[in-house]
Amino acid sequence: MAFRFEIIKKDSFSRARIGRVETDHGSFNTPVFLPVGTQGTVKSLTPEELVEIGVEAILANTYHLYLRPGHETIGRLGGLHTFIHWERPILTDSGGFQIFSLGSLRKISEEGVIFQSHLDGSSHFLTPEKVMEIQRSLGSDIAMVLDECVPYPSPYEYVKTSMERTSRWAKRCLEVRRENDPALFAIVQGGVHRDLREKSVQTLVEMGFQGYAMGGLSVGEPKSMMLDVLEWTTPFLPENSPRYLMGVGTPEDIIDAVMRGVDFFDCVLPTRNARNGILFTSSGKISIKQAQYVEDRRPVDETCACYTCRHYSRAYLRHLYLSKEILSSRLNTIHNLYYYMTLLGKIREAIQEGRLLDFYKSHNSHHGLETEFSNHFQSN
Amino acid sequence: MAFRFEIIKKDSFSRARIGRVETDHGSFNTPVFLPVGTQGTVKSLTPEELVEIGVEAILANTYHLYLRPGHETIGRLGGLHTFIHWERPILTDSGGFQIFSLGSLRKISEEGVIFQSHLDGSSHFLTPEKVMEIQRSLGSDIAMVLDECVPYPSPYEYVKTSMERTSRWAKRCLEVRRENDPALFAIVQGGVHRDLREKSVQTLVEMGFQGYAMGGLSVGEPKSMMLDVLEWTTPFLPENSPRYLMGVGTPEDIIDAVMRGVDFFDCVLPTRNARNGILFTSSGKISIKQAQYVEDRRPVDETCACYTCRHYSRAYLRHLYLSKEILSSRLNTIHNLYYYMTLLGKIREAIQEGRLLDFYKSHNSHHGLETEFSNHFQSN
Repeated sequence: MAFRFEIIKKDSFSRARIGRVETDHGSFNTPVFLPVGTQGTVKSLTPEELVEIGVEAILANTYHLYLRPGHETIGRLGGLHTFIHWERPILTDSGGFQIFSLGSLRKISEEGVIFQSHLDGSSHFLTPEKVMEIQRSLGSDIAMVLDECVPYPSPYEYVKTSMERTSRWAKRCLEVRRENDPALFAIVQGGVHRDLREKSVQTLVEMGFQGYAMGGLSVGEPKSMMLDVLEWTTPFLPENSPRYLMGVGTPEDIIDAVMRGVDFFDCVLPTRNARNGILFTSSGKISIKQAQYVEDRRPVDETCACYTCRHYSRAYLRHLYLSKEILSSRLNTIHNLYYYMTLLGKIREAIQEGRLLDFYKSHNSHHGLETEFSNHFQSN
Repeated sequence: MAFRFEIIKKDSFSRARIGRVETDHGSFNTPVFLPVGTQGTVKSLTPEELVEIGVEAILANTYHLYLRPGHETIGRLGGLHTFIHWERPILTDSGGFQIFSLGSLRKISEEGVIFQSHLDGSSHFLTPEKVMEIQRSLGSDIAMVLDECVPYPSPYEYVKTSMERTSRWAKRCLEVRRENDPALFAIVQGGVHRDLREKSVQTLVEMGFQGYAMGGLSVGEPKSMMLDVLEWTTPFLPENSPRYLMGVGTPEDIIDAVMRGVDFFDCVLPTRNARNGILFTSSGKISIKQAQYVEDRRPVDETCACYTCRHYSRAYLRHLYLSKEILSSRLNTIHNLYYYMTLLGKIREAIQEGRLLDFYKSHNSHHGLETEFSNHFQSN
């Protein structure tokens, strides 16, 4: 499949850059946030709604789709895009994160990982070659190599052994790659250890992938460590390849990571929070179930132009949430994703116009956060 | 509030007629099916989607909205239309059916009914005057009187006592009616007893309401009894007032009732079935979870033009249902409501073109049902 990444502009103060990715299913702008469509649907929304919100690309979960309905079924039905009625780019993760979240239900070896399905307990064996086959059947635009996501904290020796195996797995993925396969991204591991992260980057970059993800972050380590890892890593990644911080994060995490050179993000935060009644606004998060909103005629965010804010009051959203109505999840998800898409749009615009630092300071001051990036970053 | 009902054409063979209702929130065509928006939302859909499906008016439940968020809250927020972002007509039931479904949690007296909330067990007293006040606060276009919905079977003497009390309650509703109140419909009761139904009709028609509902049907009695009750009742109702069969029903029930002179219907069947994966098609109902659909690329119904059938396969709908995804409820609800709206449109068209009997026969033969209406009806 076609894949091209072009950098449009680099920020002069930080490592941030704006770019454009082209695939067989159209292009999208970076930095990009990919809403998560775990089981072949971004929970509660239609593809048309995603487009209206400004979503240009989504993520789907190889692990879930492999188990149900099965990649071969999806392949026979014409691939994931056709199956789920989404014509724009899809990135599929390799399932590594989900499998390693299974804990005692999986066993790892050099060959791959044996795990038990969370659905029916059936046994499955996933190898680097198998995840390539699955993502080929799904017809995704961007595929991820199989990796091991190591929990935090883990012993140095284990992190080292695991990282080296993840690199060997990445090589095996490359080796079975076919002409018409999805673009393939490697995953940098190495926990919070600078030498291991550098070694991981070096090994993977030598192999040569179309993009590089930072894995094993946002798994419980302090945020400053995550930012340290980015600062150690991104300078050694090829300038002209996209960088993807998997599973991240809050609006603040995203801004911080963009300034450290990250281009791709995905996270369940906006969609999961939405279903739990937690809504992002220009002045911080609110919990819509609170009694203070019972007769509040205002939209969630008076500065927001999303469908939800244009038509519904906080009072109605509170009522829907307390009544456990399906429409509650829908309207909240629309709002939160719109907030994220707007945020990413503002970040790109700020980079374009050379005022990312001002944007960063202003965002933090609106949200009562300290702005310590400039000193911290410059001291490195 | 303004309310006008105009008959456009009467069927020459049956008692069916097409008409048009005008309210302050616009007009709609009859026979009409009102999707049920129990808690101020037709479950899983937005108002825009309802409009796209062809919905012209909806029903909301006084009982549920009185308990949560409360009619006074909705009143202060500008009324139900504003609260739920639905600009077209709303009919509110009186809460009678829900309260009488509570069984031992309610106590009835001449004054009204005391019941315990299904939400928090709190005690409430609903009177005819109170349901008028509630529906006034909601700002509905069509309000229903408080009635007692008697279960089937019930002793003749109880049905008689209850029907007489329902008539006295109807009178009390009329007496507190204000100039700008919603149009008020009475509810005919009397179980499956011809003399009681006739007495109920006679009493209510003498009082004079803007419409008449048939209550206490579809509560477990054989279908032939329901049709008998309609045949006894509709000839005594004023020709120029709409007739409403509450809580009914299947597509076949609706056609049968239209031929006996009914103009309004409401039922949770299409929406509830949708959430349970039961879909209406031109050749009968299907259960989307069945294994036979696992790789079925066809839409639910190849003759259907709804959003769901235009874009999604049975295979994907099965996957969403088995995965308990919110989008499953949405896509299924869109399809089932579209099926109902299309059915009602076809019924109106058949009446307009003087071929309702042919339509009835053809519908039944497609669904493997006997067509016994003509003999049955003519023998009366």
